Amino acid sequence: MGETVFSKIIRGEIPCHPVYEDEHVLAFLDINPLSKGHTLVIPKEAVERVDQLSEDSGAAVGRALVRVSRAVVAATGCTSYNILQNNGADAHQAVMHVHFHIIPKYDDAGLGIGWKPRGIDQDEAKALAAAIADKL
Amino acid sequence: MGETVFSKIIRGEIPCHPVYEDEHVLAFLDINPLSKGHTLVIPKEAVERVDQLSEDSGAAVGRALVRVSRAVVAATGCTSYNILQNNGADAHQAVMHVHFHIIPKYDDAGLGIGWKPRGIDQDEAKALAAAIADKL
Repeated sequence: MGETVFSKIIRGEIPCHPVYEDEHVLAFLDINPLSKGHTLVIPKEAVERVDQLSEDSGAAVGRALVRVSRAVVAATGCTSYNILQNNGADAHQAVMHVHFHIIPKYDDAGLGIGWKPRGIDQDEAKALAAAIADKL
Repeated sequence: MGETVFSKIIRGEIPCHPVYEDEHVLAFLDINPLSKGHTLVIPKEAVERVDQLSEDSGAAVGRALVRVSRAVVAATGCTSYNILQNNGADAHQAVMHVHFHIIPKYDDAGLGIGWKPRGIDQDEAKALAAAIADKL
Protein backbone atom coordinates (compact mmCIF):
# COMPACT_ATOMS: atom_id res chain seq x y z
CA MET A 1 0.00 0.00 0.00
CA GLY A 2 1.07 3.52 -0.75
CA GLU A 3 3.01 5.96 1.30
CA THR A 4 0.97 9.11 1.99
CA VAL A 5 1.31 12.25 4.04
CA PHE A 6 -0.44 10.33 6.84
CA SER A 7 2.39 7.75 6.97
CA LYS A 8 4.78 10.64 7.55
CA ILE A 9 2.53 12.11 10.24
CA ILE A 10 2.29 8.70 11.99
CA ARG A 11 6.10 8.42 11.96
CA GLY A 12 6.44 12.00 13.24
CA GLU A 13 8.23 13.21 10.11
CA ILE A 14 5.53 15.82 9.46
CA PRO A 15 4.03 17.70 12.40
CA CYS A 16 0.34 17.60 13.34
CA HIS A 17 -1.85 18.74 16.20
CA PRO A 18 -2.44 15.38 17.91
CA VAL A 19 -5.38 14.71 20.21
CA TYR A 20 -5.17 10.93 20.76
CA GLU A 21 -2.86 7.99 20.07
CA ASP A 22 -2.82 4.29 20.87
CA GLU A 23 -1.18 1.19 19.37
CA HIS A 24 -3.47 1.12 16.33
CA VAL A 25 -4.87 4.64 15.98
CA LEU A 26 -3.83 8.28 15.72
CA ALA A 27 -6.19 11.27 15.93
CA PHE A 28 -5.25 14.85 15.08
CA LEU A 29 -6.84 18.08 13.90
CA ASP A 30 -7.66 18.43 10.21
CA ILE A 31 -5.22 20.97 8.80
CA ASN A 32 -7.95 22.71 6.78
CA PRO A 33 -11.08 22.26 8.94
CA LEU A 34 -14.71 22.66 7.93
CA SER A 35 -15.48 23.80 11.49
CA LYS A 36 -13.88 24.26 14.89
CA GLY A 37 -12.87 20.85 16.29
CA HIS A 38 -12.75 19.05 12.90
CA THR A 39 -10.62 16.02 13.79
CA LEU A 40 -9.27 13.03 11.85
CA VAL A 41 -9.16 9.53 13.34
CA ILE A 42 -6.92 7.20 11.34
CA PRO A 43 -5.65 3.63 11.66
CA LYS A 44 -1.88 3.29 11.66
CA GLU A 45 -2.36 0.45 9.18
CA ALA A 46 -1.65 2.07 5.80
CA VAL A 47 -4.49 1.00 3.51
CA GLU A 48 -6.57 3.09 1.17
CA ARG A 49 -10.13 1.95 1.90
CA VAL A 50 -12.12 0.57 4.82
CA ASP A 51 -12.79 -2.70 2.98
CA GLN A 52 -9.00 -3.29 2.87
CA LEU A 53 -8.55 -2.71 6.61
CA SER A 54 -7.93 -5.54 9.09
CA GLU A 55 -10.90 -6.15 11.38
CA ASP A 56 -8.68 -5.45 14.40
CA SER A 57 -7.82 -2.01 13.03
CA GLY A 58 -11.51 -1.44 12.33
CA ALA A 59 -12.36 -2.29 15.93
CA ALA A 60 -9.61 -0.01 17.26
CA VAL A 61 -10.85 2.86 15.09
CA GLY A 62 -14.46 2.29 16.19
CA ARG A 63 -13.44 2.42 19.84
CA ALA A 64 -11.38 5.57 19.24
CA LEU A 65 -14.28 7.28 17.41
CA VAL A 66 -16.34 7.00 20.61
CA ARG A 67 -13.56 8.38 22.80
CA VAL A 68 -12.48 11.18 20.47
CA SER A 69 -16.07 12.23 19.66
CA ARG A 70 -16.76 12.51 23.37
CA ALA A 71 -13.67 14.72 23.80
CA VAL A 72 -14.48 16.90 20.76
CA VAL A 73 -18.00 17.47 22.11
CA ALA A 74 -16.67 18.26 25.58
CA ALA A 75 -14.00 20.64 24.34
CA THR A 76 -16.02 22.51 21.72
CA GLY A 77 -19.52 22.37 23.20
CA CYS A 78 -20.91 21.35 19.81
CA THR A 79 -24.25 19.56 20.08
CA SER A 80 -24.30 18.12 16.58
CA TYR A 81 -21.59 16.59 14.43
CA ASN A 82 -21.01 14.27 11.48
CA ILE A 83 -18.60 11.40 11.09
CA LEU A 84 -17.57 10.95 7.46
CA GLN A 85 -15.19 8.51 5.82
CA ASN A 86 -14.60 8.54 2.06
CA ASN A 87 -13.36 5.65 -0.10
CA GLY A 88 -12.19 6.48 -3.61
CA ALA A 89 -11.49 9.79 -5.35
CA ASP A 90 -15.02 9.66 -6.80
CA ALA A 91 -16.32 9.67 -3.24
CA HIS A 92 -14.28 12.77 -2.28
CA GLN A 93 -11.26 10.93 -0.82
CA ALA A 94 -8.17 13.16 -1.05
CA VAL A 95 -5.53 11.30 1.00
CA MET A 96 -5.32 7.62 0.08
CA HIS A 97 -5.01 6.32 3.64
CA VAL A 98 -8.22 5.48 5.56
CA HIS A 99 -9.39 8.43 7.68
CA PHE A 100 -12.59 9.21 9.55
CA HIS A 101 -13.56 12.89 9.84
CA ILE A 102 -15.32 14.07 13.00
CA ILE A 103 -16.90 17.35 11.92
CA PRO A 104 -18.76 19.54 14.44
CA LYS A 105 -21.87 21.17 12.99
CA TYR A 106 -22.61 24.77 13.87
CA ASP A 107 -25.17 27.14 12.39
CA ASP A 108 -22.59 28.60 10.04
CA ALA A 109 -20.07 25.79 9.54
CA GLY A 110 -19.74 22.05 9.13
CA LEU A 111 -20.37 19.33 6.57
CA GLY A 112 -22.83 19.95 3.74
CA ILE A 113 -24.95 16.92 2.88
CA GLY A 114 -26.75 16.24 -0.40
CA TRP A 115 -29.43 13.59 0.04
CA LYS A 116 -31.45 12.30 -2.91
CA PRO A 117 -33.13 8.98 -2.03
CA ARG A 118 -34.02 6.67 -4.90
CA GLY A 119 -36.45 4.22 -3.26
CA ILE A 120 -36.17 0.49 -3.73
CA ASP A 121 -38.45 -2.33 -4.80
CA GLN A 122 -38.97 -4.82 -1.96
CA ASP A 123 -38.18 -7.91 -4.05
CA GLU A 124 -35.05 -6.22 -5.37
CA ALA A 125 -34.05 -5.30 -1.81
CA LYS A 126 -34.53 -8.88 -0.62
CA ALA A 127 -32.28 -10.23 -3.38
CA LEU A 128 -29.65 -7.52 -2.81
CA ALA A 129 -29.52 -8.12 0.95
CA ALA A 130 -29.06 -11.86 0.29
CA ALA A 131 -26.26 -11.11 -2.20
CA ILE A 132 -24.44 -8.89 0.33
CA ALA A 133 -24.93 -11.38 3.18
CA ASP A 134 -23.54 -14.09 0.89
CA LYS A 135 -20.24 -12.17 0.65
CA LEU A 136 -19.79 -11.94 4.43
CA MET B 1 -32.58 6.33 25.95
CA GLY B 2 -35.47 6.47 23.56
CA GLU B 3 -37.27 3.74 21.74
CA THR B 4 -36.99 4.19 17.96
CA VAL B 5 -37.92 2.27 14.86
CA PHE B 6 -34.45 0.68 15.07
CA SER B 7 -35.24 -0.84 18.49
CA LYS B 8 -38.25 -2.51 16.87
CA ILE B 9 -36.12 -3.71 13.94
CA ILE B 10 -33.52 -5.16 16.35
CA ARG B 11 -36.27 -7.02 18.23
CA GLY B 12 -37.75 -8.28 14.95
CA GLU B 13 -41.04 -6.43 15.45
CA ILE B 14 -40.56 -4.50 12.22
CA PRO B 15 -39.12 -6.31 9.20
CA CYS B 16 -35.89 -5.28 7.47
CA HIS B 17 -33.57 -6.67 4.81
CA PRO B 18 -30.72 -7.89 7.04
CA VAL B 19 -27.19 -8.43 5.79
CA TYR B 20 -25.24 -9.05 9.02
CA GLU B 21 -25.82 -9.62 12.72
CA ASP B 22 -23.68 -10.36 15.75
CA GLU B 23 -24.01 -9.90 19.51
CA HIS B 24 -23.54 -6.12 19.37
CA VAL B 25 -24.38 -5.09 15.81
CA LEU B 26 -27.08 -5.36 13.16
CA ALA B 27 -26.69 -4.34 9.50
CA PHE B 28 -29.54 -4.03 7.02
CA LEU B 29 -30.45 -2.20 3.83
CA ASP B 30 -31.58 1.42 4.11
CA ILE B 31 -35.28 1.45 3.31
CA ASN B 32 -34.93 4.58 1.14
CA PRO B 33 -31.44 4.25 -0.35
CA LEU B 34 -29.32 6.93 -1.99
CA SER B 35 -27.78 4.23 -4.21
CA LYS B 36 -27.76 0.48 -4.78
CA GLY B 37 -26.24 -1.25 -1.75
CA HIS B 38 -26.88 1.61 0.72
CA THR B 39 -26.60 -0.24 4.03
CA LEU B 40 -26.97 0.74 7.70
CA VAL B 41 -24.69 -0.63 10.41
CA ILE B 42 -26.09 -0.03 13.90
CA PRO B 43 -25.14 -0.97 17.45
CA LYS B 44 -27.82 -2.85 19.36
CA GLU B 45 -27.10 -0.47 22.23
CA ALA B 46 -29.88 2.11 21.99
CA VAL B 47 -28.19 5.50 22.27
CA GLU B 48 -28.65 8.59 20.15
CA ARG B 49 -25.08 9.71 19.46
CA VAL B 50 -21.65 8.15 19.07
CA ASP B 51 -20.30 10.04 22.08
CA GLN B 52 -22.92 8.26 24.23
CA LEU B 53 -21.96 4.79 22.98
CA SER B 54 -19.97 2.31 25.07
CA GLU B 55 -16.44 1.78 23.77
CA ASP B 56 -17.17 -1.93 23.33
CA SER B 57 -20.12 -1.14 21.06
CA GLY B 58 -17.90 1.30 19.18
CA ALA B 59 -15.31 -1.41 18.64
CA ALA B 60 -17.94 -3.91 17.48
CA VAL B 61 -19.36 -1.38 15.02
CA GLY B 62 -15.87 -0.54 13.70
CA ARG B 63 -15.16 -4.21 13.11
CA ALA B 64 -18.53 -4.69 11.40
CA LEU B 65 -17.96 -1.65 9.15
CA VAL B 66 -14.91 -3.40 7.69
CA ARG B 67 -16.75 -6.68 7.12
CA VAL B 68 -19.95 -5.17 5.75
CA SER B 69 -18.11 -2.67 3.51
CA ARG B 70 -16.14 -5.55 2.03
CA ALA B 71 -19.39 -7.43 1.33
CA VAL B 72 -21.15 -4.38 -0.14
CA VAL B 73 -18.20 -3.79 -2.48
CA ALA B 74 -18.10 -7.46 -3.48
CA ALA B 75 -21.85 -7.69 -4.09
CA THR B 76 -22.37 -4.38 -5.90
CA GLY B 77 -19.03 -3.94 -7.66
CA CYS B 78 -18.91 -0.32 -6.50
CA THR B 79 -15.37 1.07 -6.46
CA SER B 80 -16.11 4.14 -4.34
CA TYR B 81 -18.33 4.64 -1.30
CA ASN B 82 -18.87 6.90 1.69
CA ILE B 83 -19.44 6.02 5.32
CA LEU B 84 -21.55 8.66 7.06
CA GLN B 85 -22.83 8.88 10.61
CA ASN B 86 -24.91 11.85 11.79
CA ASN B 87 -25.33 13.09 15.36
CA GLY B 88 -28.13 15.56 16.03
CA ALA B 89 -31.05 16.76 13.90
CA ASP B 90 -28.93 19.77 12.87
CA ALA B 91 -26.42 17.31 11.41
CA HIS B 92 -29.09 15.49 9.34
CA GLN B 93 -29.84 12.71 11.86
CA ALA B 94 -33.38 11.40 11.31
CA VAL B 95 -33.58 8.29 13.54
CA MET B 96 -32.30 8.95 17.05
CA HIS B 97 -30.37 5.69 17.40
CA VAL B 98 -26.72 5.61 16.28
CA HIS B 99 -26.39 4.39 12.69
CA PHE B 100 -23.56 4.35 10.17
CA HIS B 101 -24.52 4.61 6.49
CA ILE B 102 -22.42 2.75 3.92
CA ILE B 103 -23.31 4.51 0.66
CA PRO B 104 -21.93 3.25 -2.67
CA LYS B 105 -21.00 6.07 -5.03
CA TYR B 106 -21.85 5.71 -8.71
CA ASP B 107 -21.72 8.29 -11.48
CA ASP B 108 -25.41 9.05 -11.05
CA ALA B 109 -26.13 8.21 -7.41
CA GLY B 110 -24.70 8.38 -3.91
CA LEU B 111 -23.96 10.89 -1.19
CA GLY B 112 -23.61 14.57 -2.06
CA ILE B 113 -20.87 16.35 -0.11
CA GLY B 114 -20.57 20.08 0.53
CA TRP B 115 -17.03 21.01 1.58
CA LYS B 116 -16.13 24.56 2.59
CA PRO B 117 -12.84 24.61 4.52
CA ARG B 118 -12.25 27.50 6.88
CA GLY B 119 -8.51 27.26 7.56
CA ILE B 120 -7.07 27.51 11.04
CA ASP B 121 -4.41 29.56 12.78
CA GLN B 122 -1.57 27.33 14.00
CA ASP B 123 -1.52 28.71 17.54
CA GLU B 124 -5.28 28.33 17.76
CA ALA B 125 -4.98 24.73 16.49
CA LYS B 126 -2.34 23.92 19.07
CA ALA B 127 -4.54 25.20 21.91
CA LEU B 128 -7.62 23.41 20.55
CA ALA B 129 -5.83 20.06 20.17
CA ALA B 130 -4.62 20.38 23.77
CA ALA B 131 -8.15 21.17 24.95
CA ILE B 132 -9.56 18.09 23.17
CA ALA B 133 -6.74 15.83 24.39
CA ASP B 134 -7.42 17.11 27.91
CA LYS B 135 -10.97 15.68 27.72
CA LEU B 136 -9.82 12.17 26.76
